[in-house]
Amino acid sequence: MRLGVFVQTPGHHVGGWRHPDAVVDGWPNLALMKHIAATAERGKFDMFFLGDGFATGYGEHPSTIGKFEPLTLLSALAMTTSRLGLAATGSTTYAEPYQIARSFASLDHLSGGRAAWNVVTTAYSKSAAVFGRQHPPHAERYAMAEEFVEACRILWDSWADDAFIADKKAGTFVRPGSLNVPSFHGKYFTVEGGLNVPRSPQGHPVLIQAGSSGPGQALASRIADVVFTAQNDLTEAQAFYRTVKVQVAGFGRGADEVLVMPGVFPVVGRTTGEAQEIFAELNRNIDTAQAFTVLSERLGSDMSVHPLDEPVPDLPETEHLKSRAALLIEMARREKLTLRQLYYRVAAARGHLLLIGTGAEIADVLETWFRAGAADGFNVMPPFFPGQFDAFVAEVVPHLQERGLFRADYTGTTLRDHLGLKRPARRS
Amino acid sequence: MRLGVFVQTPGHHVGGWRHPDAVVDGWPNLALMKHIAATAERGKFDMFFLGDGFATGYGEHPSTIGKFEPLTLLSALAMTTSRLGLAATGSTTYAEPYQIARSFASLDHLSGGRAAWNVVTTAYSKSAAVFGRQHPPHAERYAMAEEFVEACRILWDSWADDAFIADKKAGTFVRPGSLNVPSFHGKYFTVEGGLNVPRSPQGHPVLIQAGSSGPGQALASRIADVVFTAQNDLTEAQAFYRTVKVQVAGFGRGADEVLVMPGVFPVVGRTTGEAQEIFAELNRNIDTAQAFTVLSERLGSDMSVHPLDEPVPDLPETEHLKSRAALLIEMARREKLTLRQLYYRVAAARGHLLLIGTGAEIADVLETWFRAGAADGFNVMPPFFPGQFDAFVAEVVPHLQERGLFRADYTGTTLRDHLGLKRPARRS
Repeated sequence: MRLGVFVQTPGHHVGGWRHPDAVVDGWPNLALMKHIAATAERGKFDMFFLGDGFATGYGEHPSTIGKFEPLTLLSALAMTTSRLGLAATGSTTYAEPYQIARSFASLDHLSGGRAAWNVVTTAYSKSAAVFGRQHPPHAERYAMAEEFVEACRILWDSWADDAFIADKKAGTFVRPGSLNVPSFHGKYFTVEGGLNVPRSPQGHPVLIQAGSSGPGQALASRIADVVFTAQNDLTEAQAFYRTVKVQVAGFGRGADEVLVMPGVFPVVGRTTGEAQEIFAELNRNIDTAQAFTVLSERLGSDMSVHPLDEPVPDLPETEHLKSRAALLIEMARREKLTLRQLYYRVAAARGHLLLIGTGAEIADVLETWFRAGAADGFNVMPPFFPGQFDAFVAEVVPHLQERGLFRADYTGTTLRDHLGLKRPARRS
Repeated sequence: MRLGVFVQTPGHHVGGWRHPDAVVDGWPNLALMKHIAATAERGKFDMFFLGDGFATGYGEHPSTIGKFEPLTLLSALAMTTSRLGLAATGSTTYAEPYQIARSFASLDHLSGGRAAWNVVTTAYSKSAAVFGRQHPPHAERYAMAEEFVEACRILWDSWADDAFIADKKAGTFVRPGSLNVPSFHGKYFTVEGGLNVPRSPQGHPVLIQAGSSGPGQALASRIADVVFTAQNDLTEAQAFYRTVKVQVAGFGRGADEVLVMPGVFPVVGRTTGEAQEIFAELNRNIDTAQAFTVLSERLGSDMSVHPLDEPVPDLPETEHLKSRAALLIEMARREKLTLRQLYYRVAAARGHLLLIGTGAEIADVLETWFRAGAADGFNVMPPFFPGQFDAFVAEVVPHLQERGLFRADYTGTTLRDHLGLKRPARRS
């Protein structure tokens, strides 16, 4: 089983930051980030995972308002950790292939081969405004992403692995013939010229993709090493898992070349009652306006106009976060949730698997999903940091280790080693 | 006196990497970077300065072929140092204001207020190709830079310094009224939306500008805290210094609000003879083709077609690196250099002040320039790393300290503290 920690301080739960064990001072708090990374490494986690987005405002989830930029933060954490994978989200809609390829290759060097890039197309249209642009429609964003990733792959293969020989006697710093100058001409992106970073320890950073819509799944199956997904029903998670593995085969790739990792939102207590009390306390701390903002963002239309204690209304399909909106609506229909009940779920796990219990109880569900072919591992989304992540590592991980489901120690040094993924050979 | 180290590994001299004391293995070498940063901090330097550019090729200066991306590297070094300023070059032609503002604000947080941004317009036209664009002409690049910096300043002022109060009891994560949503509409850049990074320790990172052409000087005088310049003649350096200070006053700023720091290329020996022998050895290690490539890049036309042992030919003015080309041609005329002699100079200091001698001898010249009103400090450009930088800190810095020209220890914690610059108040 693979484990990542989805680091979204002060916490994934909208009200998580108000818990006494949430650290919220000195914002943005570097010591907190170092603590989380050290805890993850002590827990032998595969990776530390950072989401990302642009723009900011009062009404938003506290985790999106003021924070570190992911690549700078992970570069710093590369110095305070030695084995933990470091995954940052990078947008293919609001960046340039040369910039992304370069920064992630640099992070891979700095960390000795622990970099991962979570490829996103950026769902929220207001991101466009900080770049003075129009937000492209869903299909176009995915077409851009395909080109973008291909351009990055070519850039990462600019130099041979053994290019930098630095032969002082002969006066040869780089070996002749070791540079393939990239030449990529797409509909959206053009790149002419070599990357000024040597080929990195992992060859290419690990690629993560989180789109669960049709185009998202297709992109993931073609390019991703890891698929991050929101699932809250075992049967549907199994179906998603099978679909990804079949699609992967369709692109000529082995089923084990792509790992499916659903998010999981664990509320961990030393007793079941304690876990339930923590969850109840979290829900008491929800700011209604903020929860509505998050819900409206996820569903793509203003939800505050609907009555709270009636069933979730019919909603138009939107261009925006298609699969997540559908997942939430489906869950609401399946479980006959009112809008208020849906909003409690979204304020917590945003559609991801929500588990409340002791370490053993949570380990049971993770084991079931893992053995049932619904997941190769999980991206852990603690309700707040560091308390609930500390609890996960202290209470849940030992059960997974005892059952032989999770490593007792690292056996390799790179993230590809941890994940059991091959280092990509250079294409010439 | 202020001191920066201009870190361009394996060295500023084209042939520097071939010296026995140059570290060139394991490229790009993080341990070397950490060593240089630690040495600079031991020497009480104001800052560690990284240049930047895009694209790569065989014929280039070894320092530009394969390296770390600056912001990721400096974020890592923020963890291995505690006082040293960290300056990265960022392009206003090939980046977005939101991206630059965000990354530098993040570095400023990670480093506890030690970030600086060297604002460049990117001189080399081949940079355009890696972004699939046309390289804008010189005047347009500077017009873009003015807008770009203004947009960044507005973004850095998005949040009040005391915005993130995280009052758990009241449920208030950010103080109402603490966000000014930036709205910038320029000819080249538009930004609508707040920066998702809290206001950083220095308010704004320190701004460095290196353009010495007319538009470059105007931009520097208006926006820069530090002007980095290439000067090799005391009288001309004094004139440049006076011009900058007068122009600064013209923008309503105090003369001490902008520091002028020429580059200096010191070849340090324990005896004068040893220093001269090091320089001779460096010149024996020049690869002719590489030196011509560097010279052609600096002058903006192919120099390999001209005879080596005749005076430097007349050259057309170019759109490219205007002031540097003029400086080199002037130096060649003044000192009646042949093309070969010019090429030796360019292979070493690229037009910057070249000093060869003992620690005391080099300190003499730096003192003269400093006392004569030609410099507020220097950006030190060692011929190779780490040997010649270690030598500078061991041999030159103690003389400057004994003479009361340079700090014996840090008195503040931020780069603005070191440089004696005010923290900018937030504009509302």
